[in-house]
Amino acid sequence: MIRLTLSEARTLAHSILLHNGFTADHAQAVTDTIVAGERDGCASHGLYRVLGCVSSLKAGKVVADARPEVIDQAPSIVRVDAAGGFSQLAFQAGLPLLQAKARSNGIAALAINRCVHFSALWVEIEQLAEAGLVALAFTPSHAWVAPAGGHQPVFGTNPIAFGWPRAGKHPYVFDFATSAIARGDIELHRRAGKAIPEGWGVDEHGQSSTDPNVVLDRGAMLTFGGHKGSALAAMVELIAGPLIGDLTSAESLAHADGSKSSPYHGELLIALDPKRFLGDAADQHLARAETVFESIEGQGARLPSQRRYAARARSLVEGVEIPEALYNDLKALLA
Amino acid sequence: MIRLTLSEARTLAHSILLHNGFTADHAQAVTDTIVAGERDGCASHGLYRVLGCVSSLKAGKVVADARPEVIDQAPSIVRVDAAGGFSQLAFQAGLPLLQAKARSNGIAALAINRCVHFSALWVEIEQLAEAGLVALAFTPSHAWVAPAGGHQPVFGTNPIAFGWPRAGKHPYVFDFATSAIARGDIELHRRAGKAIPEGWGVDEHGQSSTDPNVVLDRGAMLTFGGHKGSALAAMVELIAGPLIGDLTSAESLAHADGSKSSPYHGELLIALDPKRFLGDAADQHLARAETVFESIEGQGARLPSQRRYAARARSLVEGVEIPEALYNDLKALLA
Repeated sequence: MIRLTLSEARTLAHSILLHNGFTADHAQAVTDTIVAGERDGCASHGLYRVLGCVSSLKAGKVVADARPEVIDQAPSIVRVDAAGGFSQLAFQAGLPLLQAKARSNGIAALAINRCVHFSALWVEIEQLAEAGLVALAFTPSHAWVAPAGGHQPVFGTNPIAFGWPRAGKHPYVFDFATSAIARGDIELHRRAGKAIPEGWGVDEHGQSSTDPNVVLDRGAMLTFGGHKGSALAAMVELIAGPLIGDLTSAESLAHADGSKSSPYHGELLIALDPKRFLGDAADQHLARAETVFESIEGQGARLPSQRRYAARARSLVEGVEIPEALYNDLKALLA
Repeated sequence: MIRLTLSEARTLAHSILLHNGFTADHAQAVTDTIVAGERDGCASHGLYRVLGCVSSLKAGKVVADARPEVIDQAPSIVRVDAAGGFSQLAFQAGLPLLQAKARSNGIAALAINRCVHFSALWVEIEQLAEAGLVALAFTPSHAWVAPAGGHQPVFGTNPIAFGWPRAGKHPYVFDFATSAIARGDIELHRRAGKAIPEGWGVDEHGQSSTDPNVVLDRGAMLTFGGHKGSALAAMVELIAGPLIGDLTSAESLAHADGSKSSPYHGELLIALDPKRFLGDAADQHLARAETVFESIEGQGARLPSQRRYAARARSLVEGVEIPEALYNDLKALLA
């Protein structure tokens, strides 16, 4: 393993992205997200993703110098046209107006369109919660997941993320796929020649299957939580697809046209300002929310982001470790 | 069984509520909700609930003549103080301003405070979706449900409901508890002396239990979908509790003080206007949403509300049937 300080990790990612043709603002925005993932112990969303960013660019699947256009769509809606670039810069471009609208109107939405999306949603949600806002985010992906009772893919892994501000503490943040499991986990089982657990997928007749080949090639993944998870996956599909005028997971997969490229589609964020809901009583009511967290942690149960925050505390002191092979692959992109 | 036309069912519920002291506007609003439940085959939210409304009133748990106060809280927030009355009239009072704000600003929230709540959320969600809006609703209940990894109740059954408008069709609507199962289902097993399935609850040590007595008296119910369902239950607790300045499920249960009364707390609704997100392209994008529904139904999977809509079609022609014992109990309330 190779150990890097966070500053070294940042410099490495940033210089690779710049060297391979991304504009400085895209390189910076993507680096911020990728280093946050590595820092928080999410290796699958960490430095490894730099490889994918560069290969997407070489394959012509992302616009390296896309200039996000911010559109003041309605008093409580911001739209950002990402113009085929990665989602990060589009989010950054829309963030100030989203915050301003949430603060003045109480609730506001940010619709990001035509972005290439590979990142977890918690990075964005955390920024909103750190700014004192309650936040939700949704995005479709590629159609890999069958509806409850079905056997053909309709939904993407369709994540839902949520953030809640906590005074003097890291915000309460969750971010999970509405699929039972990440597609990558099923692929790892296939590579290892191992059966997958019941509940992850079905065969082409809708029967439960533990064969990763069957699920990936002929059947479909399943949602978490049966018909309830399936209903939520449909909701994400609708509100972060047609509602914002962007692609569904099926349309995104069709657009990828057999390539392994990241979804090209939209994302919906909603921000709510507790101060606008509660006025002067905001602090008092947010303190009552702390009672909810105490009653969860007090019985030994975990809050969703605790593992990430613990990894972050370690990384800030010790830096991060990445496999030497990954380090060498990254270095090769600077040649 | 006793068969009633919907008109007879309506007259029966309305006259009982009036006779027992509810004002005409409350009687009307509650009747609309209860008859909708009976009509749609949800007997547990149907005429049977009239008994609970009257007993709540006799027990001093609901204000029969509460006048909901509509507060224009912020450009995109309506608040309604239900003043201790049932939620239905408060929702009706806030609905016009919620719709107006969603239509002018793109997204808006309705916070209902200090209401007594016994109804399903789909009745309200459907009204918003029928008006062409996308809608979400959340409410806590009483603290009966443990967080994932825990053994003490923190959350209520904390439902999430969603609606999506469909041109010329019933809207896509779901409404489910984030608990694995309704508390009433566990109580039915207890009365029948039957074990409950794994996954519904835990004992006081957090071990899975199939004994309804253990789960109801010493342990806790579980959420659906493991840690993901638990995270969603926490979200509902927060955004429909402290965010709107109202009680958490634990506080609502404490307020009930050992009585069997309905939760007394708040509800959050969010409405989004596709026309504000999409402008002239709204119809075109809503048509793409139909492709999602077709790909679900086309493979033999069911949309969440199909059973209710089928029951509705039957009830509109044939009326509804209720047990004779229930009919007699209802008639007795007119004496």
